[in-house]
Amino acid sequence: MTRPSTGPDLLARARTGHIPSQSQLITALEAQTPIGRSLLPAVHAAGGRAHVIGVTGAPGSGKSTLVGALAKELRAQDRTVAIVAVDPSSSLTGGAILGDRIRMQEHALDPGIFVRSMSTRGWLGGVSRATVDAVAVLDASGWDVLIVETVGVGQAEVEIVQIAHTTVVVSVPGLGDDIQAIKAGLLEVADLHVVNKVDRPDANKTIAELLNMLTLAGPPSAGGWPIPVLGTVGLDGTGVAELVGTLDQHLAWLRSTGELATRERSAAAARIRAIARDLVTDRIHDPAIGDAFDAAVEDVASRRLDPHTAAAALIGSVAITDRFPGGVTT
Amino acid sequence: MTRPSTGPDLLARARTGHIPSQSQLITALEAQTPIGRSLLPAVHAAGGRAHVIGVTGAPGSGKSTLVGALAKELRAQDRTVAIVAVDPSSSLTGGAILGDRIRMQEHALDPGIFVRSMSTRGWLGGVSRATVDAVAVLDASGWDVLIVETVGVGQAEVEIVQIAHTTVVVSVPGLGDDIQAIKAGLLEVADLHVVNKVDRPDANKTIAELLNMLTLAGPPSAGGWPIPVLGTVGLDGTGVAELVGTLDQHLAWLRSTGELATRERSAAAARIRAIARDLVTDRIHDPAIGDAFDAAVEDVASRRLDPHTAAAALIGSVAITDRFPGGVTT
Repeated sequence: MTRPSTGPDLLARARTGHIPSQSQLITALEAQTPIGRSLLPAVHAAGGRAHVIGVTGAPGSGKSTLVGALAKELRAQDRTVAIVAVDPSSSLTGGAILGDRIRMQEHALDPGIFVRSMSTRGWLGGVSRATVDAVAVLDASGWDVLIVETVGVGQAEVEIVQIAHTTVVVSVPGLGDDIQAIKAGLLEVADLHVVNKVDRPDANKTIAELLNMLTLAGPPSAGGWPIPVLGTVGLDGTGVAELVGTLDQHLAWLRSTGELATRERSAAAARIRAIARDLVTDRIHDPAIGDAFDAAVEDVASRRLDPHTAAAALIGSVAITDRFPGGVTT
Repeated sequence: MTRPSTGPDLLARARTGHIPSQSQLITALEAQTPIGRSLLPAVHAAGGRAHVIGVTGAPGSGKSTLVGALAKELRAQDRTVAIVAVDPSSSLTGGAILGDRIRMQEHALDPGIFVRSMSTRGWLGGVSRATVDAVAVLDASGWDVLIVETVGVGQAEVEIVQIAHTTVVVSVPGLGDDIQAIKAGLLEVADLHVVNKVDRPDANKTIAELLNMLTLAGPPSAGGWPIPVLGTVGLDGTGVAELVGTLDQHLAWLRSTGELATRERSAAAARIRAIARDLVTDRIHDPAIGDAFDAAVEDVASRRLDPHTAAAALIGSVAITDRFPGGVTT
């Protein structure tokens, strides 16, 4: 017999490594239940230990397979791995695409690995918040390495990159005639480039193009991180041990240079900003606001009013508190 | 001798079809200059005439070539065409990728066509606002057809889809082993599917997969729009006249069913919401707020405070006006 979970119970069990509790907590946060919301401060306070790695790249680059191989190598080194896969599948076909995850089933009986898919259900809007919350739960739960896998372009990925300590951008030979990382706007976010499927005949061209672009960007500053380009074959694990070694070097560099603290401040700023934006969107639709929003929509649609004036009027009396009651700064 | 433009001059000249004034106005809005901001109500009021078509799809699907062919066909039918291309190139390589646009140069001397690239400079954040404003300027300037070309995944594209009357999703045979429109979360947004490069040997498979997915989604409701799948070859114009015919049919359907008005209301709601969110982000960073934001960032980064509590505190005294002063509802 099990009693229904109370919030603190749920977090305490999640922190002992109890995977069903972790899943339940992620679901509660995704659904924004009262228990989920009430646990956010404790979840955040308990985090900060895991190495958070973002893996991103164009569709078809073999990211899922590579992430599977990466997890296998980390497990061989006796580190625990949680994977959060952001899956831009539609509500129509969610199940089919989640089938991608089937290849992870070889790990299904290993308690040192956990895979969670976050479905975007058509729009990417809510997924970034839910993904970031899921990462916070898994961080609080004590996993050594958290891998966040995303499809590579757009606001959701930007927010995920902002919480990652190390961002890996995956390219693949022969996918279109331009450099994918550039097309996707991902060149600046990479701490590490991987050319996957490097056993293909045109792999050297892709590697050379990336190296050329990095050369154009200029050498790293003194003490800076020289962005490497690694080759892997996700299917057979070629180059994956080297990838793990380089990820470890990057984390060591982040720590030794103080860059880790800088990134954590940037991540905090980005999260506060994103959450504040969501809160305002919620407020605009609050029934307490009455019909103001609906009236504004009618006026803008009929061109009696422009949307900028409408938005400014709706948040016209926004007064942001000039003292910050929640924090204790020392 | 020319005098420096005043705002009303600039819009008036743009509306006579003076392309340099249109460019200047788009730039003013992109840079958010005082003149640009002051013209937003008049720009919005003057719009609502053009057929706004969104063209989206994965990188490598040949969208730019197809859009060029589409413009050529529309010109042959004596309609004027403005193209806004959202270009996720990095600040490092912006010039190189804009070279894609060179293929549009065959139209360079035709005053009935206009091409504007919106560069995302790494992040996709600001580009959706700037793109939507550019579309509003071109709409106010009297172009018959506005084509907005985007790379296919993410928040920027979602916002652009919300302002399009007709959304075309471009797939291409043999790009990875999954259906690209689904991978990219684009299945629900398509009013019309195009399989480009349909002369490739595996094109029938791609068409069949799309048709199969559409069948799974069920038939359209009575009076609904049956989503077609067309084949094109952007390079030689195969199928492009049929594409133009279908785009016209879709606009006629939108008008005859009242769906056009519904979409314009949704677009208005989405824009008001997006602008309100941006305004709040600006307010949070307003120096008038003092150090509250910076203090919150420090507290969240050091895990003394969680970002949800911080954001709620920062916008704690947000009071959205319960009367809406700007609009006249009848």
